[in-house]
Amino acid sequence: MPVPTTDGHRSEQPLRVAIVGYSFMGTIHAQAWTTAPRFFDLGRGVDLVAVSGRDADAARTFADRFGIADVEADWRALLTRGDIDVIDICTPGHLHAEIAIAALDAGIHVLCEKPLANTLEEAERMDAASERAAARGVHAMVGFSYRRTPALAFARRLVTDGRLGTIRHIRAQYLQDWIADPTFPLVWRLDADQAGSGALGDLGAHIIDLARFVTGQELTGVSALTSTFVTERPLPTSSSGLSATAGDDPEDREAAEPLTGRVTVDDAVVFIARTDGGALATFEATRFATGRKNAMRLEVDGSDGSLVFDFERMNELQFHDHTLPAEEAGFRRILVTEPGHPYADAWWPAGHGLGYEHTFVHEVADLARDLAAGRAPEPGFADGLRVQRVLTAVSASADAGAAWIPLDH
Amino acid sequence: MPVPTTDGHRSEQPLRVAIVGYSFMGTIHAQAWTTAPRFFDLGRGVDLVAVSGRDADAARTFADRFGIADVEADWRALLTRGDIDVIDICTPGHLHAEIAIAALDAGIHVLCEKPLANTLEEAERMDAASERAAARGVHAMVGFSYRRTPALAFARRLVTDGRLGTIRHIRAQYLQDWIADPTFPLVWRLDADQAGSGALGDLGAHIIDLARFVTGQELTGVSALTSTFVTERPLPTSSSGLSATAGDDPEDREAAEPLTGRVTVDDAVVFIARTDGGALATFEATRFATGRKNAMRLEVDGSDGSLVFDFERMNELQFHDHTLPAEEAGFRRILVTEPGHPYADAWWPAGHGLGYEHTFVHEVADLARDLAAGRAPEPGFADGLRVQRVLTAVSASADAGAAWIPLDH
Amino acid sequence: MPVPTTDGHRSEQPLRVAIVGYSFMGTIHAQAWTTAPRFFDLGRGVDLVAVSGRDADAARTFADRFGIADVEADWRALLTRGDIDVIDICTPGHLHAEIAIAALDAGIHVLCEKPLANTLEEAERMDAASERAAARGVHAMVGFSYRRTPALAFARRLVTDGRLGTIRHIRAQYLQDWIADPTFPLVWRLDADQAGSGALGDLGAHIIDLARFVTGQELTGVSALTSTFVTERPLPTSSSGLSATAGDDPEDREAAEPLTGRVTVDDAVVFIARTDGGALATFEATRFATGRKNAMRLEVDGSDGSLVFDFERMNELQFHDHTLPAEEAGFRRILVTEPGHPYADAWWPAGHGLGYEHTFVHEVADLARDLAAGRAPEPGFADGLRVQRVLTAVSASADAGAAWIPLDH
Amino acid sequence: MPVPTTDGHRSEQPLRVAIVGYSFMGTIHAQAWTTAPRFFDLGRGVDLVAVSGRDADAARTFADRFGIADVEADWRALLTRGDIDVIDICTPGHLHAEIAIAALDAGIHVLCEKPLANTLEEAERMDAASERAAARGVHAMVGFSYRRTPALAFARRLVTDGRLGTIRHIRAQYLQDWIADPTFPLVWRLDADQAGSGALGDLGAHIIDLARFVTGQELTGVSALTSTFVTERPLPTSSSGLSATAGDDPEDREAAEPLTGRVTVDDAVVFIARTDGGALATFEATRFATGRKNAMRLEVDGSDGSLVFDFERMNELQFHDHTLPAEEAGFRRILVTEPGHPYADAWWPAGHGLGYEHTFVHEVADLARDLAAGRAPEPGFADGLRVQRVLTAVSASADAGAAWIPLDH
Repeated sequence: MPVPTTDGHRSEQPLRVAIVGYSFMGTIHAQAWTTAPRFFDLGRGVDLVAVSGRDADAARTFADRFGIADVEADWRALLTRGDIDVIDICTPGHLHAEIAIAALDAGIHVLCEKPLANTLEEAERMDAASERAAARGVHAMVGFSYRRTPALAFARRLVTDGRLGTIRHIRAQYLQDWIADPTFPLVWRLDADQAGSGALGDLGAHIIDLARFVTGQELTGVSALTSTFVTERPLPTSSSGLSATAGDDPEDREAAEPLTGRVTVDDAVVFIARTDGGALATFEATRFATGRKNAMRLEVDGSDGSLVFDFERMNELQFHDHTLPAEEAGFRRILVTEPGHPYADAWWPAGHGLGYEHTFVHEVADLARDLAAGRAPEPGFADGLRVQRVLTAVSASADAGAAWIPLDH
Repeated sequence: MPVPTTDGHRSEQPLRVAIVGYSFMGTIHAQAWTTAPRFFDLGRGVDLVAVSGRDADAARTFADRFGIADVEADWRALLTRGDIDVIDICTPGHLHAEIAIAALDAGIHVLCEKPLANTLEEAERMDAASERAAARGVHAMVGFSYRRTPALAFARRLVTDGRLGTIRHIRAQYLQDWIADPTFPLVWRLDADQAGSGALGDLGAHIIDLARFVTGQELTGVSALTSTFVTERPLPTSSSGLSATAGDDPEDREAAEPLTGRVTVDDAVVFIARTDGGALATFEATRFATGRKNAMRLEVDGSDGSLVFDFERMNELQFHDHTLPAEEAGFRRILVTEPGHPYADAWWPAGHGLGYEHTFVHEVADLARDLAAGRAPEPGFADGLRVQRVLTAVSASADAGAAWIPLDH
Repeated sequence: MPVPTTDGHRSEQPLRVAIVGYSFMGTIHAQAWTTAPRFFDLGRGVDLVAVSGRDADAARTFADRFGIADVEADWRALLTRGDIDVIDICTPGHLHAEIAIAALDAGIHVLCEKPLANTLEEAERMDAASERAAARGVHAMVGFSYRRTPALAFARRLVTDGRLGTIRHIRAQYLQDWIADPTFPLVWRLDADQAGSGALGDLGAHIIDLARFVTGQELTGVSALTSTFVTERPLPTSSSGLSATAGDDPEDREAAEPLTGRVTVDDAVVFIARTDGGALATFEATRFATGRKNAMRLEVDGSDGSLVFDFERMNELQFHDHTLPAEEAGFRRILVTEPGHPYADAWWPAGHGLGYEHTFVHEVADLARDLAAGRAPEPGFADGLRVQRVLTAVSASADAGAAWIPLDH
Repeated sequence: MPVPTTDGHRSEQPLRVAIVGYSFMGTIHAQAWTTAPRFFDLGRGVDLVAVSGRDADAARTFADRFGIADVEADWRALLTRGDIDVIDICTPGHLHAEIAIAALDAGIHVLCEKPLANTLEEAERMDAASERAAARGVHAMVGFSYRRTPALAFARRLVTDGRLGTIRHIRAQYLQDWIADPTFPLVWRLDADQAGSGALGDLGAHIIDLARFVTGQELTGVSALTSTFVTERPLPTSSSGLSATAGDDPEDREAAEPLTGRVTVDDAVVFIARTDGGALATFEATRFATGRKNAMRLEVDGSDGSLVFDFERMNELQFHDHTLPAEEAGFRRILVTEPGHPYADAWWPAGHGLGYEHTFVHEVADLARDLAAGRAPEPGFADGLRVQRVLTAVSASADAGAAWIPLDH
């Protein structure tokens, strides 16, 4: 049954969505898809038609939880049902390319979790597929959900409005600590075959995209260092695999014969960069910053003003207006919950605050509105590819001992 | 169709809920009822059966938005349908007593928004009704939703565990600024007949309840001052009535013949108090604290430690452990998002943050679980009555020129 | 030898100062008097001529430490030496009136520590003496040193400039925790005979003065509660008397025959008030707020803006400009270290920060400049008396069970 | 006349100090030398004997301001007077080597401002001179004054005590904005001949030293980028030269024939590094971070805990103890003003706060005590040289397009 739009008008054509993956990302996407039409006018309702995943029981539980009618053991079945408008890919990275390309080629819109792919080659093929599809009115979006944080969308607006002047500095960090304990198990995110990279792709991809999103500038080269602080970890047990933080795909739950396994991704990465706007940038992504839980932090300094953001205080943006008299200037804490702020008027009165979940509601609402309007959603696979090029350059630099790797764009 | 529980088991007996009121509070309650069973194991599903409200079109829009089948123009119809387990009262305060008492007497559980009533007499009758009902296994809960903020539930746990020692000071403030502008219209919340009081009942009720909840202590007397800074305001137009902050009941939308009307409630209140545990307390509730949007702030100082909370940073609790060596002690910012924190393990990984909406999800989840277990939910109407006694004493003190009004308990 | 002025011009007439008391306050005053002429143009140098105190050895050590030539066992000797321009009274409160009145009557300017006196009667006599003296060009200042915090002087400027509009709320707290431990000894500050009152006079006096200073408004009535949480304490030993926090007068060091003594002052006080500008105010002063070391906090909310200050971050003022567009408004953290800020251009580059000590440097610099210019310094004894009236009303209210005590002005 | 020690005992041998330079650094050093013996037991007094500087009038004004008897136009005269124990070098960097080496060779102790020198060659000669001198009991200290910030000395203690476990990350930034305005004049600090480098040597030197000081680890290689955002600036006028921020040497005041000049130093630098303890580090120094006045920020993350410091809140250290239960852990704000904290017991009660000036008081107090005890002070010229090697490597990396430059140690 299609969920009606906020104006009470039942569209004959709800947006029919299938989700691939039912873990952390699948859950939050499903919640977002059901919430979005209640708070945003999407032009039509949303119908969560099916979920796909290898473990039929887990998928069925998930389907029941979110009122999804069908479970498909093989995602390929989604392509031929004929009743799917959007495939929402919430799997580990190694599956992104195959699913996304097949879906786009089948004429189905795609929302794909980030990072776009595990390799540059995959990302390039995905981008090519999205271009082919776009020519037919079929669109692809990459899930850089943090762009939909009201404070960050507002940050971009301030930059676009010229409030920062010429940008001089970008300081971007994504700090977590969930694997600082060396006894934390070897979940799929620590396996290069599935995850592609570690902190780099998981966390670094977000801040690379955000630096681009907020400043509108591209990196022109990088010099990077990575470290894997803990190289051997216990293999996951079924219970450890159920951690909300880690993946809980059935692959993780196999009986662990060897006691430990080798971590094949980076635990942390730091890099410096220049931008095409003449700014100097520093980036850091780590899962070993004890005390930091989800500290996605961004600072941008311009000739006329500066911005500070930390996702651990996601409803706040700090803005320094350097054009004010010096005696009155200072970083002001803006609660980005006013009706005039991005996304905010759909929600509660000022100051009441949104959570992590709502960035996904905004993401799928934007996607649905774009599709309804026949617009290409942003960020598209070209953005995902651009980020992938940076990730690849960072890896190459780290492999070459912090050598400078230029980036064309 | 009942929403299934998280374990995928479809109960034959979903909890059937009707909501009275479809404005700000009705909306967030509806969202909470649909989200709760997806993230908490309630023992059964939840079915939003009906919504009641005077404006049939508005109620129908609301019903469609949240997938509610039926609209009842008169809430009394809910009593006799026979398919309602819970009536969730989201109306202005002057309607609470009649609806709640009728529902309880009809054997229907009640969740009633705060403050419990507009007068002490109403609150006493409601409490009596809840006692009568409880004897029959029918329960009532008052909607002090902020108790379900994880940080505040954790604050209570720290106090209960003795981490603060003997409590010396309570500092409770609820600061907003939404009517600081004298041209803001005379919405229902500024009308004593509908709202009972102004900042006192709307905001003060929350912090009185929270001081009780977190410290486990009762106020033994108060001395209070109130002010109405802006005594005349423009009457609301239909558009002003649509403000999410203000009420948007159809009553507000009548044609406004006089241009302005008289504000009949307090704009702000301050009071001092003693508690039965020997603490000194200060309270302040205002809608004129410019720059404060939803600053519900609580500080508690004890002989062994202190707590600080501000709802504008709802995912954080500051805790000072005074038993540590002085060189190492200080207020620590705890992100109350760890799996071991109240409610947190139902959600996302640590640090990802919840919003205002989630306090209501927790509220209805707790209510549903209590009802499933046959437990009386907390806070019950006795709590609402206790808060009402304080509100009444505060008003009496202010009316008597800040005279000391003792409170029995 | 007179200390030269900053422009290198040696005045033939340095300002000759004698200090009475050589404990915490005496020390910081002496340091301030020697530093002030190096950083501020006082019109002449400063010569610390003598120190007076009962314990000759302690006074001599103090004199040597600060290059003071003479020690006088009896402060009365300072009156007749003929070479003293200013007597700086740094004793416990019970000695203020006698010394200050005698000095003023002897034609010697007076700087007197706060609170002005232990009783209203003393304060009235001191004020009368200061009026008599002023007629002869002899001036008196009361040591509300916190007025000289750059951030608070700047706060006053913002209010005076109309940046806050009509003031609605004052929230003033002075929170410390140094006697939260019940084994802390019964130092002179806990003895009503010497200190007059406890947290009220020591801490409350400061925030009463600051609320007046920053807002320019007077309290028109109060309703108050006080508590003494720990009523018996160990008598001080000589070592405990040496605590910098507590007094270290020789009286404290006598052999302690009884093991404990009775605390005769308040540990904490809370009160509410109205102002002559129509604002509601809350005040709290306590030595039992664990985790707060010197948290002198002031919040002022007006129709056009709000201010927040905490002395624990003394170089910062938070200012919310409510006239900005709502999307851009928020509390901004102003580092009050710009050349255009009060006192700041005498010091280091912006952002380098001053300490507690510097408020005293500013105080004596202002006093010296006023005296050089023949101006009455502020705050004068009339200010001290006004604060004393509030302190007296607060005590009276607390004694009368939080009764409302009106204040004329 | 020697200033007596705090115990009132007049030493026959005060420490006799001459200062070279009377600008910003000279001023704060002079203030520090006069304050230190009043608050710290140095074993003997301090006598400021002479000041040296080219502009005799300016030097005389300075001498009078701080009670210094003699002015020497040529610093070489200080070497042969026979009454100087310490030469305190507060000049621009290009003069450090000559003065320091001559003084040490003449048997006079040296305190030299940072960075140690403008070139590695100079620094190596200075270090060699300090080793020669040390063999004769003559000592040299480099003025990394921020080490004497109580919060940073306490940070080091926490690391040394093992409270952070294995260090994984260092994030060091020194952010200012005083030349963000392109019309700010070309003061000496923007001239490579005098200053050696820009933000790198001025600000970067501090954070390199602090990272070493707090963690006890050395950098093993760097990869760096620098930028000069504003390449042409107006030449300074005599008034602009008087800015406390900029140098005010007479050289700056010459008549400016050309209207603008070329900036020959870096405006900003970023670099990444590894340490010999296996940590990843990012560094940034800039004078273009609008809104940041003196934001010397350091974050250190270890396996057992993390630290955060910002000099704009110099009395605070944030410490996360990762060994606590996750529910109770969080960054705690320690006010580093307790008697048990470094340097703090010499000053005021807890919470009352120190300023920038006091780091210099601590510096000269430590130096004086070390000299009295015959101990080599820290940081010595070997530390200055170590920092210089890093600065040189950073420059070399930047010149080579962010190439990795390894560092031996």
